Amino acid sequence: MKRSFIREILESIDENTISFAGGLPNEALFPLKDLQEATTKIFKDANVLQYSLSNGIKSLRQKIANEYTNEGFETTVDNILITTGSQQAMYIIAKYFESKAITIEEPSYLGAMNIFRLNALFMESVKLEDDGIELEGFEKSFQKTKLAYLIPDFQNPFSSTYSDEKRAMVAKIVKTEGGILIEDAPYRELYFDKKHSTISSLIPNQSFHLGSFSKTLAPSLRIGWIRASQELIQSLLVIKESIDLHSCGISQYILDEYLSNDENYKKHLNNLRKNYKIQMEFFAQTLQEELPQFHFSKPKGGMFIYGNLDTNTSELVLKAIKEKVVFVPGSEFYNEHKRYNEIRFNFTHSTIDEIKEGIQRIKNLLVMK
Amino acid sequence: MKRSFIREILESIDENTISFAGGLPNEALFPLKDLQEATTKIFKDANVLQYSLSNGIKSLRQKIANEYTNEGFETTVDNILITTGSQQAMYIIAKYFESKAITIEEPSYLGAMNIFRLNALFMESVKLEDDGIELEGFEKSFQKTKLAYLIPDFQNPFSSTYSDEKRAMVAKIVKTEGGILIEDAPYRELYFDKKHSTISSLIPNQSFHLGSFSKTLAPSLRIGWIRASQELIQSLLVIKESIDLHSCGISQYILDEYLSNDENYKKHLNNLRKNYKIQMEFFAQTLQEELPQFHFSKPKGGMFIYGNLDTNTSELVLKAIKEKVVFVPGSEFYNEHKRYNEIRFNFTHSTIDEIKEGIQRIKNLLVMK
Repeated sequence: MKRSFIREILESIDENTISFAGGLPNEALFPLKDLQEATTKIFKDANVLQYSLSNGIKSLRQKIANEYTNEGFETTVDNILITTGSQQAMYIIAKYFESKAITIEEPSYLGAMNIFRLNALFMESVKLEDDGIELEGFEKSFQKTKLAYLIPDFQNPFSSTYSDEKRAMVAKIVKTEGGILIEDAPYRELYFDKKHSTISSLIPNQSFHLGSFSKTLAPSLRIGWIRASQELIQSLLVIKESIDLHSCGISQYILDEYLSNDENYKKHLNNLRKNYKIQMEFFAQTLQEELPQFHFSKPKGGMFIYGNLDTNTSELVLKAIKEKVVFVPGSEFYNEHKRYNEIRFNFTHSTIDEIKEGIQRIKNLLVMK
Repeated sequence: MKRSFIREILESIDENTISFAGGLPNEALFPLKDLQEATTKIFKDANVLQYSLSNGIKSLRQKIANEYTNEGFETTVDNILITTGSQQAMYIIAKYFESKAITIEEPSYLGAMNIFRLNALFMESVKLEDDGIELEGFEKSFQKTKLAYLIPDFQNPFSSTYSDEKRAMVAKIVKTEGGILIEDAPYRELYFDKKHSTISSLIPNQSFHLGSFSKTLAPSLRIGWIRASQELIQSLLVIKESIDLHSCGISQYILDEYLSNDENYKKHLNNLRKNYKIQMEFFAQTLQEELPQFHFSKPKGGMFIYGNLDTNTSELVLKAIKEKVVFVPGSEFYNEHKRYNEIRFNFTHSTIDEIKEGIQRIKNLLVMK
């Protein structure tokens, strides 16, 4: 199996390359001081360094559970499993459903597709539209697979968001068919205007809801979680335990301490949303002015702008790397029916100057062509 | 599949129970202050919170590589893969060898056996002796499997250590057969008198050598590593990436900072060895005085005393839990040919008083019987 194009790119490009490729949060917005302060408080006793529970430390699970309950999705500590990033959450669930068939969006998250391949899941792709998955295709596929992997909030890479109607319809189909939904929501808190309610809350016993602190706080903590019925969580625990016994304790204690000041986190999230919206608007405007041949809809949150133009982007990216600018060609995000004229741009990790300069370099390439 | 007996025990016993069950290091010996101090130094810039490389941060890999090179086992950063504990190292390798046959020691590490089951490896057990695996049986099995999982240093649970002769013979067999050795060495630094050289250094391109900071520094960091040929490391990377993208960054930076003061770590290890030896000697002496019917050899390092007595220990442990003392019955460590009269005692995690009282409680149970 091939490694992830994005991870390989991250490891190979030099520091002079402007990267619109990764899904990196903006380091300038990390709450470095607050996290450092939280860290100084965790070394109260030696237990912070000892082995801990496989499902995660209880007070952190409690805080995550409270968030769900506060938005009307009743959740207890026993519904939460702490994972080593959302990536591991996906891996554990994929391992649990090993060799089964699964309905996915098209395009979809590359990391998840690699995990599905590694665990011999057979993927059936259904077209993604601007307001969510194409429903007729979804129903037809789900009747066979009884298992779906969807990213309803600011999808990676497509950047679309499910309408409330489609959320309700997806839940209804999952319910009717007696299947299971894996709802991946790492970007959910990164909305510009409105937080959507989860699909999982409509089918609490037939869903995994995946969350992460990687996009909202700091990826290096490697802390994500799964919200599911107590029964499903218990089924996953034996896999979680086999993979790494438990997720990093230090990270969990830092997070637990940081989140105990609720106002800090709220302020931080608002700051993130405000700044990412500014970055997105600037990126979108520059694209419209400099690359009018690139067609896209502005996202309502998340980290990506996705669109298409009249050129083979898998070839374009190789030339772009030489010109020291990089993005991910859309073909990477398809399991079948690959499209070769699409691009995913990350807008969160570049400065205003880099956005200008990077798009200019792509423009020059297209002119040269 | 059943969850690990030990993990379940850890989650269910109350604080009044004396536990000789887990493989927990002694919290009183954690270098809490030094690790806290290292932690305050890592928040120099925001990169410490960002995504990082899948194989681990380079300067930490360099330090681990240097350790091998210093003992004559030439190793570079490209030979090292940082993992989320040694447990994940095992998982990644097992996934890589999915559905193959593997030669293991009997008894063997429970966590590894669970990982092998989860990845459909067929285990063939060969008897472990006081100076290492029974060689004739090993050769016969390895000729078929071409893959072995061994714990040569202070084995868990058996507490035995391979002689230099057996190390050389195992290496020779692996070489002759063109197979692969997985050498798991989490306890290697916890020697009382003498550090043995690795088997892997005799077969550098046909081995995985697994190390961990969980037993020597702090389990909650969840940092272990694999030492292997660059080619084998590259093959594992796609699996590592799928499982959790990379191991906790914060932990890696803390470790890297802590290890940059080489004297600190050396002093700490010496202190650990000295104290664990005292704890082992006291545990052994108390067993000899209070439970003379329990037969065992004193270990030369590690965390466990292993032995047998004339009673069904899988039944005894259930009574013991009620009397608020717990150990792991030997049967847990066998994949086949289970033995029901053996016990693994952990000696590192109990105080002198707890050792006295815990063994007394077991003695009372045996008298009542």
